Amino acid sequence: MKIIKLGMIGFGNVAHGFIQALIEKKTFFRKEMGLEFLVTSITDIRYGTIYDPDGLPVEKLASVRDFSEMDQSLFREWNTIQMIRNAESDVIIELSYTDLKTGEPAVLHCQEALLSGKHVITSNKGPIALHYSMLKGLARDNGVKIGCEGTVMSGTPALRLATDSLLPTGITEIKGILNGTTNFILTEMENGSTYDDALKEAQRLGYAEADPSGDVEGFDTAGKIAILAHLVFGTFIKPEDINREGISDITLEDIRDAQKANMHWKLIGSLKKTEKGLEASVKPVMLPEDNPLSAIRGAGNAIQYRTDLLGEITLIGPGAGRKETAAALIEDLLHIVL
Amino acid sequence: MKIIKLGMIGFGNVAHGFIQALIEKKTFFRKEMGLEFLVTSITDIRYGTIYDPDGLPVEKLASVRDFSEMDQSLFREWNTIQMIRNAESDVIIELSYTDLKTGEPAVLHCQEALLSGKHVITSNKGPIALHYSMLKGLARDNGVKIGCEGTVMSGTPALRLATDSLLPTGITEIKGILNGTTNFILTEMENGSTYDDALKEAQRLGYAEADPSGDVEGFDTAGKIAILAHLVFGTFIKPEDINREGISDITLEDIRDAQKANMHWKLIGSLKKTEKGLEASVKPVMLPEDNPLSAIRGAGNAIQYRTDLLGEITLIGPGAGRKETAAALIEDLLHIVL
Repeated sequence: MKIIKLGMIGFGNVAHGFIQALIEKKTFFRKEMGLEFLVTSITDIRYGTIYDPDGLPVEKLASVRDFSEMDQSLFREWNTIQMIRNAESDVIIELSYTDLKTGEPAVLHCQEALLSGKHVITSNKGPIALHYSMLKGLARDNGVKIGCEGTVMSGTPALRLATDSLLPTGITEIKGILNGTTNFILTEMENGSTYDDALKEAQRLGYAEADPSGDVEGFDTAGKIAILAHLVFGTFIKPEDINREGISDITLEDIRDAQKANMHWKLIGSLKKTEKGLEASVKPVMLPEDNPLSAIRGAGNAIQYRTDLLGEITLIGPGAGRKETAAALIEDLLHIVL
Repeated sequence: MKIIKLGMIGFGNVAHGFIQALIEKKTFFRKEMGLEFLVTSITDIRYGTIYDPDGLPVEKLASVRDFSEMDQSLFREWNTIQMIRNAESDVIIELSYTDLKTGEPAVLHCQEALLSGKHVITSNKGPIALHYSMLKGLARDNGVKIGCEGTVMSGTPALRLATDSLLPTGITEIKGILNGTTNFILTEMENGSTYDDALKEAQRLGYAEADPSGDVEGFDTAGKIAILAHLVFGTFIKPEDINREGISDITLEDIRDAQKANMHWKLIGSLKKTEKGLEASVKPVMLPEDNPLSAIRGAGNAIQYRTDLLGEITLIGPGAGRKETAAALIEDLLHIVL
């Protein structure tokens, strides 16, 4: 049995999903892979740091929302950086909040972990969109790896499909529905809702935040397009430099006109290799019914790779969610340790 | 520069596509991956065996259909087994003809190559559907690998999606349109053709063979379902034991009745984990319009994995073709040597 020790940064929704998945898959990891995962430390800016080099009680952690019921002996006076340095761990799971302008504090966490010779797995778009090359270089220099499958389409392996399979087939173009909230709103509008009602419904269901601009104005999609540019084309594009248009100007009339022509409005993030370089954009596009992206309803996501050898390859799956993002962390974990 | 020597069995359509792809991607392999591939030997039951340990002239080979114009000095009096044993090569690319009853002669070729300490890549369903466990075991014992991405959906990475990403998310069910010929016929029938006319058109376009039973009676799909059972669920199912029904009894009336209900007939290969074990079947199924498989038109293929953590993941792409199958061989090659 190979024992892998994990240090976690952040104790929110995704962290819970991840701990739950570790519990549910425990037998699978042991029997099929000869692996045992121990969460040795969790640090959260709100609740402090807990640590046990022999493994924290994950069943208990799965049932609580903060650390108030945890045994006092587990607490350490460590900030995040100290936890990364001091806790016995092979892999740091970075789940702090996303900042697409600076990437902080996650960039610092990732750097520190890699410099300490620890693998990093994150579902945080900030550090990957803004500093992937630097982090990848640090990882290489320190003999460790960085996993970021969860940054685009959660556990749907959109990134690994490209990097591990399609790269040699010659990827020339990428198009994707990479934000579930906007696709949910557009689907609701096709069913007759106004934009405002659809947005309210998305907020009620927890898809959209109180300030929905990150989703509806296309910032979230732009971050994912920047990540794809890095990983697939080796090109750095600042998310804020991407030609970006959201869905807030789309009217019910636009939707109906499209429907009459058997078309569907979708918020499409795209990358295209051209003679002038890599063109990136995020904008609403009308797609014909026979494009598989047209069929994506509700909060679903999909990505389409155009390749020299295979033509068009489309991957459809969830784009968010606690279990779904936990799945991405698990996928990365196995790729790193196996 | 790392030099990889390749021995090829078979000089048909896919072999040509593969050689062409090696030529087109030469700079990519050198610059991006530090790899140089040399085809050192090709053996074909019709044309004999040619060999040059420093690499055969691939540009010339890409332009000929047999070996009649090849330099006499290249010929060797080797049968396939002798070629596998004697030719300097790191990887054997097995592209002989498919036999889903015995798997021969490909099984013998694969065994011999693995026993000789050579990696094997094949797009031949026979040996993988019938003897994957044995071949995998042989590969392990001899410190080499076996690649078979091309056996299901050609270069569309249907197998690697499951084995390299989705396995830990808990795959419980697989459904796929895994045969382009039957999907082409069903699409033509939706456009108004009779079954017989649609079949003739498929034959004219080269999708269907003179004896179309392998496709239309579901034998081809059953072979692919057996491969998926092996690779994804670790379960051996004989292709001939799979509950199988083809599309030849579907009438234009069936198609029209489905269309009236916004449904589409598709030939679906499926695998499902149940309490009684793994259930396998191949049969025509009516799918509702909002299932992404419904949208697959013409000779396209698609596969759907149902998972615990991610729900439904759908991958759409080509299922056959010379360039497309060559892409699978290239994908496997890089996975083996990198």
